[in-house]
Amino acid sequence: MPDATTAERERRNGAVAEVTALLADYAACIDADALEEWPDFFTADCHYKITTAYNHARGLPVGLIYAHNRAMLEDRVVALRKANVYEPQRYRHIVSTPRITGGGLVGSAGDEAIEAETGFLVVRTMHDGTQDLFASGVYLDRIDFSGNRPRFAGKIVVLDSDRVDTLLAIPL
Amino acid sequence: MPDATTAERERRNGAVAEVTALLADYAACIDADALEEWPDFFTADCHYKITTAYNHARGLPVGLIYAHNRAMLEDRVVALRKANVYEPQRYRHIVSTPRITGGGLVGSAGDEAIEAETGFLVVRTMHDGTQDLFASGVYLDRIDFSGNRPRFAGKIVVLDSDRVDTLLAIPL
Amino acid sequence: MPDATTAERERRNGAVAEVTALLADYAACIDADALEEWPDFFTADCHYKITTAYNHARGLPVGLIYAHNRAMLEDRVVALRKANVYEPQRYRHIVSTPRITGGGLVGSAGDEAIEAETGFLVVRTMHDGTQDLFASGVYLDRIDFSGNRPRFAGKIVVLDSDRVDTLLAIPL
Repeated sequence: MPDATTAERERRNGAVAEVTALLADYAACIDADALEEWPDFFTADCHYKITTAYNHARGLPVGLIYAHNRAMLEDRVVALRKANVYEPQRYRHIVSTPRITGGGLVGSAGDEAIEAETGFLVVRTMHDGTQDLFASGVYLDRIDFSGNRPRFAGKIVVLDSDRVDTLLAIPL
Repeated sequence: MPDATTAERERRNGAVAEVTALLADYAACIDADALEEWPDFFTADCHYKITTAYNHARGLPVGLIYAHNRAMLEDRVVALRKANVYEPQRYRHIVSTPRITGGGLVGSAGDEAIEAETGFLVVRTMHDGTQDLFASGVYLDRIDFSGNRPRFAGKIVVLDSDRVDTLLAIPL
Repeated sequence: MPDATTAERERRNGAVAEVTALLADYAACIDADALEEWPDFFTADCHYKITTAYNHARGLPVGLIYAHNRAMLEDRVVALRKANVYEPQRYRHIVSTPRITGGGLVGSAGDEAIEAETGFLVVRTMHDGTQDLFASGVYLDRIDFSGNRPRFAGKIVVLDSDRVDTLLAIPL
């Protein structure tokens, strides 16, 4: 097996490890209901969007949620805390392995960004203890490694289902 | 901690990274409905089988799907495309961490094959947006690293459930 | 990016790989119904507890299951085998990526323990083939690396749901 392939493989495995760790922290933040910490996973000029596979495949512009900077995410958390008239719920993200789709070398000699696609599902637990499959889909992420910690410069959450009536309640 | 253990650990971690990346690509191919690319994840003389835990534990020979070379997988995709009278569905594989059960050193001085067992589940989204747990089980894989990319020389899909009436529609 | 950060990153990625591999083996043991091997995943003086998020957040002392050494886990398996009047069931753990919360350097110069938090879900398959989401939650683990294999010195299983009537049947 040629050395070049080995080098590519190590490069990819390192990138996978970085993205995996970031997504684990991201999911844990939401699952712990620590929403005030959620915007800090994004860069100041980030783009964040929740859309559906149907809309995403057709390039339809209207997502369920759209923010084009971090301040909008902070506003959203404030609004969620004020408006939260729903019964208490708990979420559990299960995140699959990221596939590196762009960039990929992190470190002193490396790229400053990685693009990745990562499948996920979310289980919801209601106050009475009942559980259901709340959502599944894929994260399309662009991650910026130039700051003091990795942050999402762009995150598109593509949901498998078009049924989204209750989805607006929490970040995904 | 003795050095030998450290070496074994690094060997295993490297193998896990390889298998994890391959399975992520494999699952993404199916979830994107790119079935025409699916046979290229297998070697020309591969074995592919879908069976149930009940049958597998008893060594019963009849699997739900059985192919003993890649051409049969290609035929299957053609048949699926022609016969697809079902309503549109979307699948989302969530793949757990592989356990390396044989082989394991990849690289210029390494083995050319890895055996691994990996749990998975598949969420199905119907056209009307309803979602259910479609399948869960374990992949028993033998992966060939001698070619220009890793490929499955053998893949046995062992399903947890014996209820398989609608499972024949897609690869798993 | 400073070298220190790179070193920390490699340290963390190594720890994640170790914990990931241990949890994959642990889950596979339970899913294969090899419960007699389950206690050997723990140290002789381990603590093991199953509790709920509600109780855990309030520091309520009564967990669903509590053991303060490995012998109690062995007793539990014996009791389970004798008392098993339930219909056959099959479980499938899907384990997310561990987040390292303490310790983290494994090897000849490293720490002897790692603390980690890891989300999980469990799918249950009944004898008639029906499947449901059995449980979801997070493992809070303290892992001892001083022995001949990594073992849990402490494992707290925090379930998302308070509905636990049938949960006592199997280890989680």
